[in-house]
Amino acid sequence: MIGAGNVGFHLGKRLFKKEHNIVQVFSRKIAKAEYLSTKIKAQAIDDLSDLVIDADFYIIAVHDDAIKEVSDKISQKKGIVVHTSGSINTDRLDKHSEYGSFYPLQTFTIKNKPDWKTIPFCYCGNNSSSEKKIKQLVRSISKNDNKITDEQRLSLHLPAVIVNNFTNHLIGIAKDICFKHSVPFELLVPLLRESLKKAEIHNPYEIQTGPARRDDQKTIKKHLSLLSKEQYRAVYKLLSESILKTEAERNNKS
Amino acid sequence: MIGAGNVGFHLGKRLFKKEHNIVQVFSRKIAKAEYLSTKIKAQAIDDLSDLVIDADFYIIAVHDDAIKEVSDKISQKKGIVVHTSGSINTDRLDKHSEYGSFYPLQTFTIKNKPDWKTIPFCYCGNNSSSEKKIKQLVRSISKNDNKITDEQRLSLHLPAVIVNNFTNHLIGIAKDICFKHSVPFELLVPLLRESLKKAEIHNPYEIQTGPARRDDQKTIKKHLSLLSKEQYRAVYKLLSESILKTEAERNNKS
Repeated sequence: MIGAGNVGFHLGKRLFKKEHNIVQVFSRKIAKAEYLSTKIKAQAIDDLSDLVIDADFYIIAVHDDAIKEVSDKISQKKGIVVHTSGSINTDRLDKHSEYGSFYPLQTFTIKNKPDWKTIPFCYCGNNSSSEKKIKQLVRSISKNDNKITDEQRLSLHLPAVIVNNFTNHLIGIAKDICFKHSVPFELLVPLLRESLKKAEIHNPYEIQTGPARRDDQKTIKKHLSLLSKEQYRAVYKLLSESILKTEAERNNKS
Repeated sequence: MIGAGNVGFHLGKRLFKKEHNIVQVFSRKIAKAEYLSTKIKAQAIDDLSDLVIDADFYIIAVHDDAIKEVSDKISQKKGIVVHTSGSINTDRLDKHSEYGSFYPLQTFTIKNKPDWKTIPFCYCGNNSSSEKKIKQLVRSISKNDNKITDEQRLSLHLPAVIVNNFTNHLIGIAKDICFKHSVPFELLVPLLRESLKKAEIHNPYEIQTGPARRDDQKTIKKHLSLLSKEQYRAVYKLLSESILKTEAERNNKS
């Protein structure tokens, strides 16, 4: 397991639980490697030249920017080299004879235990032999296995950023507004949950409500007057415009 | 019950279930009034001059823009006049001697049954007598009663629009991207659910991840190259910038 961050940590534990033998855990910070390695009976290393040469898999779970560098440094291994990134093409691993993608489509934090049963796993391999073996690895820890090309993975990573990073940011803004106006965010939690449940099931454009959709400039102005931060005003304005555009487009079509 | 739209429909049913006597249901469209009135043993009317004068409550659940007009038309009633809006000041109802706010903080659709146990109810009255009676009405259908001023209600309505309308729109964009790139949105559902769960519990700014937070221009460019629609590109760019700004601000402070 190369990398002991959020993804490497949970993936290492999951593989161990499903009776895989994790030989080594690499991290540039040895303490981080050790934190994971002791849990999964592996050797902790902080130097890639200490990697064994005969593992079945080398799982690169490092930051996107470091994938190519790490891959190039660990050449001449016998096993299959995979990375866990959503946006990096697998050809970055092409120094190896067998390589591919091993991508759990979920957000991981060391503190929170992932629910592996619900996590969709995406994979692909550079040839049918590697792909078959990667698929087996996926199936050993997940029942939700999805063969996905590099192109498809990037097409998934973009909306993943939207539903994760962007909605998270918006909730951050909402919490900040509540804090600044001394109203409890807790009052909004049932609304937030219901909104998401509805958006999942229905076409969000069809069920859209609110001031932007009905071009209610009076309410929009009231809201903007509450936002002293220019950054938030810009987000509010642009998203309201975007909702209105979508609505106009839908009306033109029908 | 004045208005038989999403809010009036569910509120009427809830009050009826809790053994309130709903005398009349008004809607400009008589069929709409009838659809609700038959369920709650009330009289359907489509003319405000047919309103009885001695109801305990007149609940105005119409569009924001129509509240003042409706309120002015129904003067000289004995009961308390309330509206269900999040953004309209209660002084719009000041033609009446007793009035106030009766605001369920949730998104309603006729099709979907609301979970009344979890819905926060906000209320206020123009004097202590009306406020006490409105509170009693709230408590008869909800255990989550919150005395909220007009100003506080608007301060809640703004983040409510963000966590409902804006996140709904973003999920709409994500679904549209999946559709255009022929990848199944279903693969993103576990991520969406987990993201929301985390954002609820933690400070979203602290747990933010992704290309925008780490100023990963390579991935941002890749994502933008997948977005042919200028509207979506603008949303992606602005939210990425906003995430980066928040991050920079947080780093400056610490």
